[in-house]
Amino acid sequence: MMAKLKFIRSKYFLEEGEVEQLAQVPSGGNPTVKKSKADDGVFGAPVKRYDGYDKVSGTARYTFDVQFPDMLHARTLRSPHPHAKILSIDTSRAEALPGVEAIIHHGNVPEIPWYGNSRLFDPHLRYVGDEIAVVAAVDERTADEALKLIDVEYEVLPFAVDAEKVLEKGAPVFHESGVLAYNPWIYERGSVLEGFKEAEVIVEETFRTQVAVHNPTEAHISVAKWDGDRLTVWDSTQGIYSVQERISEALRIPASSVQVFCPTMGGGFGSKLEGGKYTVMAALLAQRTGHPVRLGMDRKEMNLVVGNRPNSVQKLRVGAKRDGTLTAMELTAFGTNGAYPGWAGCNFPLIGTYKCPNVKTDMSSVYTNLGRSRPFRAPGRPQGTFAMDSILDDLAAKLEIDPLELRLKNYAEIDQYSNQPYTSKKLREAYLQGAKQFGWTEKWRPAGTDSGPVKRGVGLASQIWSGGGGPPAGVTVKLNVDGSADVIAGSQDLGTGTYTFLSQVVAEGLDIPVENIRVILGDTATGPKCPVSGGSLTAPSLSPAAWDAANQIREVLLDGAAAVWEVDKKRIAYSKGLFTVPEDDTKRATLPEMIDAIGMGTIVRTGYRAKNVEGYTAQSFGVQFAEVEVDTRTGKIRVLKILAAHDIGRTLNRRLLENQFHGGIIQGLSFALMEERIVDEESGRVLSTNLHDYKLPTIKDVPEIEVLIVENDNDTKVNSMSVKGIGEPPIIPTAGAIANAVFNATGVRVKELPMTPDRVLMALLSEV
Amino acid sequence: MMAKLKFIRSKYFLEEGEVEQLAQVPSGGNPTVKKSKADDGVFGAPVKRYDGYDKVSGTARYTFDVQFPDMLHARTLRSPHPHAKILSIDTSRAEALPGVEAIIHHGNVPEIPWYGNSRLFDPHLRYVGDEIAVVAAVDERTADEALKLIDVEYEVLPFAVDAEKVLEKGAPVFHESGVLAYNPWIYERGSVLEGFKEAEVIVEETFRTQVAVHNPTEAHISVAKWDGDRLTVWDSTQGIYSVQERISEALRIPASSVQVFCPTMGGGFGSKLEGGKYTVMAALLAQRTGHPVRLGMDRKEMNLVVGNRPNSVQKLRVGAKRDGTLTAMELTAFGTNGAYPGWAGCNFPLIGTYKCPNVKTDMSSVYTNLGRSRPFRAPGRPQGTFAMDSILDDLAAKLEIDPLELRLKNYAEIDQYSNQPYTSKKLREAYLQGAKQFGWTEKWRPAGTDSGPVKRGVGLASQIWSGGGGPPAGVTVKLNVDGSADVIAGSQDLGTGTYTFLSQVVAEGLDIPVENIRVILGDTATGPKCPVSGGSLTAPSLSPAAWDAANQIREVLLDGAAAVWEVDKKRIAYSKGLFTVPEDDTKRATLPEMIDAIGMGTIVRTGYRAKNVEGYTAQSFGVQFAEVEVDTRTGKIRVLKILAAHDIGRTLNRRLLENQFHGGIIQGLSFALMEERIVDEESGRVLSTNLHDYKLPTIKDVPEIEVLIVENDNDTKVNSMSVKGIGEPPIIPTAGAIANAVFNATGVRVKELPMTPDRVLMALLSEV
Repeated sequence: MMAKLKFIRSKYFLEEGEVEQLAQVPSGGNPTVKKSKADDGVFGAPVKRYDGYDKVSGTARYTFDVQFPDMLHARTLRSPHPHAKILSIDTSRAEALPGVEAIIHHGNVPEIPWYGNSRLFDPHLRYVGDEIAVVAAVDERTADEALKLIDVEYEVLPFAVDAEKVLEKGAPVFHESGVLAYNPWIYERGSVLEGFKEAEVIVEETFRTQVAVHNPTEAHISVAKWDGDRLTVWDSTQGIYSVQERISEALRIPASSVQVFCPTMGGGFGSKLEGGKYTVMAALLAQRTGHPVRLGMDRKEMNLVVGNRPNSVQKLRVGAKRDGTLTAMELTAFGTNGAYPGWAGCNFPLIGTYKCPNVKTDMSSVYTNLGRSRPFRAPGRPQGTFAMDSILDDLAAKLEIDPLELRLKNYAEIDQYSNQPYTSKKLREAYLQGAKQFGWTEKWRPAGTDSGPVKRGVGLASQIWSGGGGPPAGVTVKLNVDGSADVIAGSQDLGTGTYTFLSQVVAEGLDIPVENIRVILGDTATGPKCPVSGGSLTAPSLSPAAWDAANQIREVLLDGAAAVWEVDKKRIAYSKGLFTVPEDDTKRATLPEMIDAIGMGTIVRTGYRAKNVEGYTAQSFGVQFAEVEVDTRTGKIRVLKILAAHDIGRTLNRRLLENQFHGGIIQGLSFALMEERIVDEESGRVLSTNLHDYKLPTIKDVPEIEVLIVENDNDTKVNSMSVKGIGEPPIIPTAGAIANAVFNATGVRVKELPMTPDRVLMALLSEV
Repeated sequence: MMAKLKFIRSKYFLEEGEVEQLAQVPSGGNPTVKKSKADDGVFGAPVKRYDGYDKVSGTARYTFDVQFPDMLHARTLRSPHPHAKILSIDTSRAEALPGVEAIIHHGNVPEIPWYGNSRLFDPHLRYVGDEIAVVAAVDERTADEALKLIDVEYEVLPFAVDAEKVLEKGAPVFHESGVLAYNPWIYERGSVLEGFKEAEVIVEETFRTQVAVHNPTEAHISVAKWDGDRLTVWDSTQGIYSVQERISEALRIPASSVQVFCPTMGGGFGSKLEGGKYTVMAALLAQRTGHPVRLGMDRKEMNLVVGNRPNSVQKLRVGAKRDGTLTAMELTAFGTNGAYPGWAGCNFPLIGTYKCPNVKTDMSSVYTNLGRSRPFRAPGRPQGTFAMDSILDDLAAKLEIDPLELRLKNYAEIDQYSNQPYTSKKLREAYLQGAKQFGWTEKWRPAGTDSGPVKRGVGLASQIWSGGGGPPAGVTVKLNVDGSADVIAGSQDLGTGTYTFLSQVVAEGLDIPVENIRVILGDTATGPKCPVSGGSLTAPSLSPAAWDAANQIREVLLDGAAAVWEVDKKRIAYSKGLFTVPEDDTKRATLPEMIDAIGMGTIVRTGYRAKNVEGYTAQSFGVQFAEVEVDTRTGKIRVLKILAAHDIGRTLNRRLLENQFHGGIIQGLSFALMEERIVDEESGRVLSTNLHDYKLPTIKDVPEIEVLIVENDNDTKVNSMSVKGIGEPPIIPTAGAIANAVFNATGVRVKELPMTPDRVLMALLSEV
């Protein structure tokens, strides 16, 4: 109970009231932006989803729903071998099948570069799933039938599917660069050599995480249609602009000739960030046949082709003083890159989550004959945090320090990577408020001290993410003559709420009801370029741009009112759709009246996200507390509760925010306990290619989730809206927190994800 | 031959070379806008139609083509009586028909005001065609079948269909205001009393023109679809924004809740300027049924309901000095207004086409139990010009003055209505160049002097139209990162070339190829508000707005380049997609490179048409010369040639311009000789409700047409682009010119349109 006592005495813990005081929003800042209070404007209010009706009623139109009377359906012939070369391909039998309109393959399309030195159709096949040919036919069944009639002669080559074995034993080389996709990514600050010398305690462990596959609800799909020289593409994408750019490059046509639509889409976790081969293939087939062409993937193809979170093997070593002060952290890690350049970086949190003067990381990406790795919700973070926060708990146990206190002890006041201050950081408040609300003090006890075969335990892990927004973003606002507004952005809504928060920001900016706003997303032709919907970039990039546009319109209105009324602009007040001159009762106009008097028609302005304030690092921060039950007889883990306490800047919409947290935490839990791509080493085939074999959680797996946001509305350095992205943060610490809770319950460390019953039992047995 | 001699001696006629000199474009003006020369930029060049491929290939998507799997088809029950009240309506038999989903009528929808004191469904029916009920069913046939099963009991009331008889004998009153729709529109300047006292010759005549029906190729049609609280409407319209406004008013929802689409449409001559009852009815049915609803009209309904150019009875009196100087012009006129407020003004040209100090016009609109009048391509102009230029030719004959000389004699140097100068006027050059090219001197001889039963004659008439552009217009330009651009405007392309000229203006403004531009029209949500496509407003309103947007972007680029290169902005040159600093070879960047360096992503700006320069009147001017053959045995007129010589400002696209002229002249010829709505006075029914009975010209009726444009690229007072609208001008003088040619051939005046063989023969007989 040593640590428990220390915990209670800790100077980091404050009395009731003091916590709230610490977490108070500082005064000052941007006075025109209202506080995140539901009753004080639309920010933070749980405004209902803009696209809620459409989705619930089934009228929302996904790419899957796009239909044309003369549309062709395409299907893809994929490599059955993990490594082979095509010696010959004969499509004559397939072409003879009634209803087949066109077949494309490496022999009859131009060489379009893809994946570095490879190309769109590469006769050198590098994994089971690699594209060989695509058939367009009058319906999907005919296209599928035709695939079977394509005769391909292969030279079958040796292959490798296990990164660890590749590094140990070597493997066939199928890229010029050898077995590594890149040079190892090495980072060092200070001197780990010196750091470990200073250390009074050293812990060393190796952690393994599995390959996880994105598996968004909506499968990848494109519909391509040509009208003369102009191409229209409907795509289930996280980046209409990246799809446009990819097509424009591949087909060598101007961006203005490629209109990409994605008004609604069914989820994306990174696999839909870039323009896909299938999209360009659909465009080629549409060009060749003169028909619109639809080319999608089934669940099996999704599990083979579109990407994954790479696995990782992380060898970690951490040194500390007796009081818990970190002196050194060192990582050597590698992961499987798959068959084409992707990236298998696995542990970025180590670099900056905690304060430590001496850090070294060495991460490698190993080519294997499998589908390629892609960014997956917080790439390199959930797996890294699992390892890092696990070893920190092991360190805490060794030092008999409360795990929370260890984190507070090593709290990073400034950015460890750049030595710059943060734009703001309220992680300490998150630790303290979260712990209080979770009942950490009451629930935590030293690891493995629970009795009974079903043991309870609690654990925590931290989160850091560059959530301040990114590349240029533009948002156009059009104020209509009746005082309603349209908002147009070249972004897309993955289901995360882009439509909704944009309507809120503009409602607030123009002081009009949120119901009087339409939002147009998912069209490259009309929407100014916005970043991909990934990397937690959307809200912090788009909300300042929308805010800027609304404010520009306010200025136009006030300038106009000043001219119309011939009074000084400063004397004019505007609130809730009404212009007045406070000292002059004769001057009074509604918004539509003033728009009419100004005489511009609709007032349209495009706003931009201002560049980042130099000299500061923008990050979001958080901690999650998990409570679990482990049945030591079956190895089964039951997560009872996750409490997430995060500093994510301003809350734009409490409901959307909770939705994001729920989604991220469930996906984190799933990563911790369930998801795993299973590969047969003998054949090089993926065995888990459907949602029966690849396990995803259902509602029965979902624990109680509590979301505690440390209000932070005045981080004007992060951006004009004080908004940090929340797409990634929720998933980052979940697996680590659960792993630590399992350790806390059982006193046994499970070092490999997912923590399936067999692995838990093995860990328990190894301790016996 | 008297007049012919005078003609040749006239001081108004110049020698070869002098004409060209007179017509020279003055030097100076806006140096950044290139001249209308095909080889010197894209202005004036016959750039091919932006939407040409789509239309020729059949892929263009009209409202007619909009389909949804669950869409319902609606049909309208219309009044069979010219005047009646609905005593009862029973839809039970119709509702029982399988496939019928909903029926709306005055008894079951809210009272939505329409046509002043009337409403959307008015149980007081005022013409054959008035809306009684609309049925939505699974297909059109079922809806049609259901119409027959609706039982309506009527109180049949007395009616009137002839405006002249209404004024003579009175008629049943069915609007509170009585038989006149408005107070007579009276205009007077100077004193006609004094003017006629000064006159040495007075001519007095009464002219009659027929009712003409718009009959665009594409019928009026709407498709309405609700998604929750938001309505999407596809509409074949000349004004997406007027449709939006009408729906928004009628249904009391914000404009942002109504998205109106019209990317492609098949012509409109004024009947599609406003939101129609059918559009709101489709929206109501869609709301009621939860399905998208399509409600269109067949050709019969088009000929009854959507509007017409009202007929006119014009009593004209003109006084002049012996030398042809006009001293007074007086008009008393009326026309049929139809059953609801429209407007039957018939002769506006009289007010300002020619110089005359004393003018009075008195125009009335008479209610009749017929479809209501609507603006029709140059409302009140072709019929007015026919009468005015006819009586002027009669005056010329009486004075033995060449008709052209009479016009030159009374040339209005300043605007007769406002006494303001014109922004520019090159009508004199048009008269002279046109006459020269037409061979007026050689062809004209005094009226009726041709021998033989088939007589040739020539005639001319003038045109004036307020073509300088109108209400506010905004155009958004988005410069993409690869240097291509998108142009977005809340306008629509009736087939007149809006897509094409916008691409040209922006290509010129950004100095990029026209092929690298996409234009998005026909969407209220994304396009800034633009005027209706009518009134010749589009090109002079939108081209300056697009030019402004492109220039704003140029400034952003030059400011950006100055910042990136750290050189004075003035030192930077930009041409054909390349930035350079002329004195510094190290500074050189392509447009995409510079966009990337500036780092805004897409550069988006919305431009506006600047307000008109005060103190000037903007008008377009023109003259048309006609040559005809009249077979005096059959009364048949054959038009051999029309030469149109116009001052319409800058030519944006020579091909589009000729297309507009061809269309306008053919429609003018058709108005002169063929089109006529025929009404049965006994029943109050329109007899000409199809394109067999309502005669439109075919290619065999089309004469040789020559278009001569007086170049006028530097009228910077009219707008920044020196562009005047050309939608209306071509139709205005055609009928007058043909009528005068007929008079010139036969020596007989046909005072009623259309000049069908029977009327020609009657006129010839009356002269015998």
